[in-house]
Amino acid sequence: MRVGVLTGGRDCPGLNAVVRAVVRKGVQHYGDEFVGFVDGWRGPLDGETVPLDIPAVRGTLPRGGTILGTSRTHPLDHPEGVRRIRENLAKHEVEALITIGGRDTLGTAARLADEYGLPIVGVPKTIDNDLSGTDCTIGYDTAVGVATGAIDRLHTTAESHKRVLVVEVMGGDTGWIALRSGLAGGANVILIPEQPFDVEQVCAWVTSRFRASYAPIVVVADGAYPKDGSMRLGPGSGVRLSGVGEWLAREIEHRSGKEARTTVLGHLQRGGSPSPFDRWLATRFGLHAIDAVHEQDFGTMVALRGTDVVRVPIAEATARVKRVDPKLYEEVGVFFG
Amino acid sequence: MRVGVLTGGRDCPGLNAVVRAVVRKGVQHYGDEFVGFVDGWRGPLDGETVPLDIPAVRGTLPRGGTILGTSRTHPLDHPEGVRRIRENLAKHEVEALITIGGRDTLGTAARLADEYGLPIVGVPKTIDNDLSGTDCTIGYDTAVGVATGAIDRLHTTAESHKRVLVVEVMGGDTGWIALRSGLAGGANVILIPEQPFDVEQVCAWVTSRFRASYAPIVVVADGAYPKDGSMRLGPGSGVRLSGVGEWLAREIEHRSGKEARTTVLGHLQRGGSPSPFDRWLATRFGLHAIDAVHEQDFGTMVALRGTDVVRVPIAEATARVKRVDPKLYEEVGVFFG
Amino acid sequence: MRVGVLTGGRDCPGLNAVVRAVVRKGVQHYGDEFVGFVDGWRGPLDGETVPLDIPAVRGTLPRGGTILGTSRTHPLDHPEGVRRIRENLAKHEVEALITIGGRDTLGTAARLADEYGLPIVGVPKTIDNDLSGTDCTIGYDTAVGVATGAIDRLHTTAESHKRVLVVEVMGGDTGWIALRSGLAGGANVILIPEQPFDVEQVCAWVTSRFRASYAPIVVVADGAYPKDGSMRLGPGSGVRLSGVGEWLAREIEHRSGKEARTTVLGHLQRGGSPSPFDRWLATRFGLHAIDAVHEQDFGTMVALRGTDVVRVPIAEATARVKRVDPKLYEEVGVFFG
Amino acid sequence: MRVGVLTGGRDCPGLNAVVRAVVRKGVQHYGDEFVGFVDGWRGPLDGETVPLDIPAVRGTLPRGGTILGTSRTHPLDHPEGVRRIRENLAKHEVEALITIGGRDTLGTAARLADEYGLPIVGVPKTIDNDLSGTDCTIGYDTAVGVATGAIDRLHTTAESHKRVLVVEVMGGDTGWIALRSGLAGGANVILIPEQPFDVEQVCAWVTSRFRASYAPIVVVADGAYPKDGSMRLGPGSGVRLSGVGEWLAREIEHRSGKEARTTVLGHLQRGGSPSPFDRWLATRFGLHAIDAVHEQDFGTMVALRGTDVVRVPIAEATARVKRVDPKLYEEVGVFFG
Repeated sequence: MRVGVLTGGRDCPGLNAVVRAVVRKGVQHYGDEFVGFVDGWRGPLDGETVPLDIPAVRGTLPRGGTILGTSRTHPLDHPEGVRRIRENLAKHEVEALITIGGRDTLGTAARLADEYGLPIVGVPKTIDNDLSGTDCTIGYDTAVGVATGAIDRLHTTAESHKRVLVVEVMGGDTGWIALRSGLAGGANVILIPEQPFDVEQVCAWVTSRFRASYAPIVVVADGAYPKDGSMRLGPGSGVRLSGVGEWLAREIEHRSGKEARTTVLGHLQRGGSPSPFDRWLATRFGLHAIDAVHEQDFGTMVALRGTDVVRVPIAEATARVKRVDPKLYEEVGVFFG
Repeated sequence: MRVGVLTGGRDCPGLNAVVRAVVRKGVQHYGDEFVGFVDGWRGPLDGETVPLDIPAVRGTLPRGGTILGTSRTHPLDHPEGVRRIRENLAKHEVEALITIGGRDTLGTAARLADEYGLPIVGVPKTIDNDLSGTDCTIGYDTAVGVATGAIDRLHTTAESHKRVLVVEVMGGDTGWIALRSGLAGGANVILIPEQPFDVEQVCAWVTSRFRASYAPIVVVADGAYPKDGSMRLGPGSGVRLSGVGEWLAREIEHRSGKEARTTVLGHLQRGGSPSPFDRWLATRFGLHAIDAVHEQDFGTMVALRGTDVVRVPIAEATARVKRVDPKLYEEVGVFFG
Repeated sequence: MRVGVLTGGRDCPGLNAVVRAVVRKGVQHYGDEFVGFVDGWRGPLDGETVPLDIPAVRGTLPRGGTILGTSRTHPLDHPEGVRRIRENLAKHEVEALITIGGRDTLGTAARLADEYGLPIVGVPKTIDNDLSGTDCTIGYDTAVGVATGAIDRLHTTAESHKRVLVVEVMGGDTGWIALRSGLAGGANVILIPEQPFDVEQVCAWVTSRFRASYAPIVVVADGAYPKDGSMRLGPGSGVRLSGVGEWLAREIEHRSGKEARTTVLGHLQRGGSPSPFDRWLATRFGLHAIDAVHEQDFGTMVALRGTDVVRVPIAEATARVKRVDPKLYEEVGVFFG
Repeated sequence: MRVGVLTGGRDCPGLNAVVRAVVRKGVQHYGDEFVGFVDGWRGPLDGETVPLDIPAVRGTLPRGGTILGTSRTHPLDHPEGVRRIRENLAKHEVEALITIGGRDTLGTAARLADEYGLPIVGVPKTIDNDLSGTDCTIGYDTAVGVATGAIDRLHTTAESHKRVLVVEVMGGDTGWIALRSGLAGGANVILIPEQPFDVEQVCAWVTSRFRASYAPIVVVADGAYPKDGSMRLGPGSGVRLSGVGEWLAREIEHRSGKEARTTVLGHLQRGGSPSPFDRWLATRFGLHAIDAVHEQDFGTMVALRGTDVVRVPIAEATARVKRVDPKLYEEVGVFFG
């Protein structure tokens, strides 16, 4: 078979490991040939490809990023998008398309498969871990590792200076990175978008921590926000702060009288070598994705359930955001303050 | 309530994280008091304890090892073992005993709970990941991380010298560490106890790797062995080799004419700071274990199922070794050679 | 002898390692007793101390931060500062004061020793590496390690998205962290305060890198600035950017038409476990500092010269900032673009 | 100019970083062309080469090992060795040969330059750090980092089990790796070849450590040995132990009655990505080596002196082994026991 592969959306660790596993099993086990579409959906839209064979994927398992490139192009925004993709798949004699992406990229994949009948198999990746239908996504474990390592480092500075350190981590609409890295890093407060916070409560936790003669670490997801709508960010606001982390540090200083500093981890969370867990998961996802292709099981996405890799409809996985359950958030609340 | 805690068997990363979570939730949420029994089953056997409260667990989340100490004492081997444990629990007014251990320690726990009615809740830990009833055990992810990091390092030496590098990892009767670290590290051969190997086949893989102008890494679990019974180790044998890793390197040199070297990772795999995943898992296990105590759900063990923490009978979890499924081993075989 | 110890200025990795070495050798070899002054110069100013003996320093070698606390208090700004320090030293019967600090803290130490005759021995620490008289300072190697690790991570994101990534590192008035981490991380442009930059030249390097089909990493010291005075930061400016990193990314986007993103490493560079090199250097500095105390060699600072630890006048070491030599900057320029 | 490059002896981290710096500056600054000789001295001996230009070195800065391959071939053992090297240099029109190696490889280089007039510039690499004339060699800092990381991990196991852990590190005839990693890792005993040890003294330190309620870590260089000649290793001995680490653990168990375990780090110390310090040093060495070539300063080796890169005669650097000074060993002795 001739199989196309693309990686879409923001880059994350483990993409190359998926591509390598797909190609290794496809070539060696099934005798497939591959076409690498570049820069996410831009590749099949513009018909731009790179050679994709065993030499091309050698040595890529531990490498972050994606050798195929990525972009946030939305082919369904193009009036001719579907037609052009169809033509380019035909031109390259591609019989199936493995699409590695997050909510956006796979949301498009679901429509292309279900509404337009394109032969697509999906693989879920995103450091945010916000895709339904799978226990976790590729990249999440690595991102948590980076964030936890950062929190570990910041503890000593907080203690030495008796300061509040606010760490802003990624997560989009969800608090998965904040929750796990905050717990693993021994944070004293963890704030997530699923649970708008009360600044007074945050200050109470901070103060109680200082009373115990320790300095607090506050982990805040970049999508978290206060209950009372008091936060104003960006050009429209008076204060012009770049994110919730800085806003919160300023509020804490103001209300508690304690010095507070912010660290924004940003892109560090999505770069670099994937963790062993992500390499394992990405490889297994790749092996199962090429199997799904050969079983013509299109419109499905590979997913982790317990220790098994299963398949779920892409549409189902992308229909709703997987959010942090209030019960789980409450469970970790015992460590606050 | 007054609750005892012990850690038994070989040490592994994440033990302190369990103890900390148990104590934090017990004290803050339930108003419990704790008794730390030292050195595994030796503690309740000899009535030896250490104070266990919130100050005692502070700062222990990222620390490997166990602040309670551990040992491989078997109380059921003592004629008076059960009586002495009962007396010591009574003497310290302990109403429940949280037992953190692997197959051995929890096997004893199951009998003490089921046959003798002791109020025990179990928590599964072992770098070997060989306990049934849970998707994984505490310590496994960290051990895989150490092994994968080592394999990453050894690739460059293999390449530079055109040598075979054999890496012997832990695992006891099972190949879980070998399988995941070998896959994550991009090993060219992975050998596990569940699947006795054929030395000629190993040499064929090694040779094929060299033909592709690359140098091979062979990951072998310390419990793996050749099909044909040709391996002789230790004092009784003529060759006096310390383990399968060295034996295999010698065989490969002999049969393939290629230079081979062995690295035995040993204790490195069980020491040091737990990975973020293990800190998370250990913490959740601890929080659920103290809940089980308060629900008087004795004879059970906390376990991971997908993303949930559930409870299973300890006896069930320890009744049989969780081995690597032949299908899973076959799945990764596409990367051999 | 009774010896006081303080750590001043911003925290950095390796402070505890110095204190531990001082105390271990002092107690075991010389039979000394120690007084720990808390929070830098605030300790001797206010007479606030903590017990400092072998149990107090146990296990602190690999720990970042400082068990003594630190602050940026300037005792010479207090009209009664010198008198109060003298009184508090006398009150605690302290015969010598080991002062671990950077330019500020040691600058004060130099004046207290030279002008007021206080019995002080200095130990140079600062991640910025800007103290004269020593090949390097404690904390610098660790900070470079954190920054290099971050740059390593960011390469894959830059490649995958064909973006410019600007990394802002610390360094104060000097470019030592930028220079070494930029070189070690394979940055394509390195900008330092010693050499005001030309934005057009930076854009030319960026563009040339893209022409070679790679994405550029720009490392910029937080004290770097453009030649032409065009940079405006902070409240007074129209643009309200928080630092040179963000300003530069915006300029690059504007002028080159390429997407650019900024990562500000901030406090990550000063926290966490010291590198092996810093633990070694800190330990040797500590051992030599207590020797200097016993030789009554006051007013001196321990320093690294090649592989030897020597002593230099504190005044000399703090008289002028150690800057990056233009020749050294030119040497690494071959990698730009 | 046409310049040859080879890497000889055992592989170590930083070799690629040297080669990359040589090629980048050679091509961009001097307009040179390069010839890569493969597998150490075997390359010029057999006339085997690989293309070496800017694309060949791209991305190699953080990669361990050597893209040129290495071997321990001794050309002076071949009767026709010198003639063949001369012919092959002539055949490839090579006007200078940059030789990156340790004592062996550079010892040969010194003779070829001084006795036979070959146009050679040397670069010192070895994890053992045993070359004279330079403050340190490439690879040493990385090896110390690996060993220190391992010691950090083993502390928790030692504590949890109340065991002695013996860590055998590399170093050949010298104790540089043992000394620095032992100090940085907080070892309780450090044994080096320069100072034959007294087993009774080692047991006394071990016992004293247990009395303080802590478990000891003993770091032993693979070349260390007991004073009294009691150690027998290998085939000829009765005990058939593989190294000093295992021998010592057995002796400690025997004499002190304490459980002891050995970890042999082996090849882990020479593989993997170079530390930031080694990348910096290797790069600077490479830049200076190509300068030396263009100044026709043959027979010299680049060397670190303080913060400067200087040149010394290769013959001088290889004439005698750089050993650990007894004074330095005594200095760290304060931490033993």
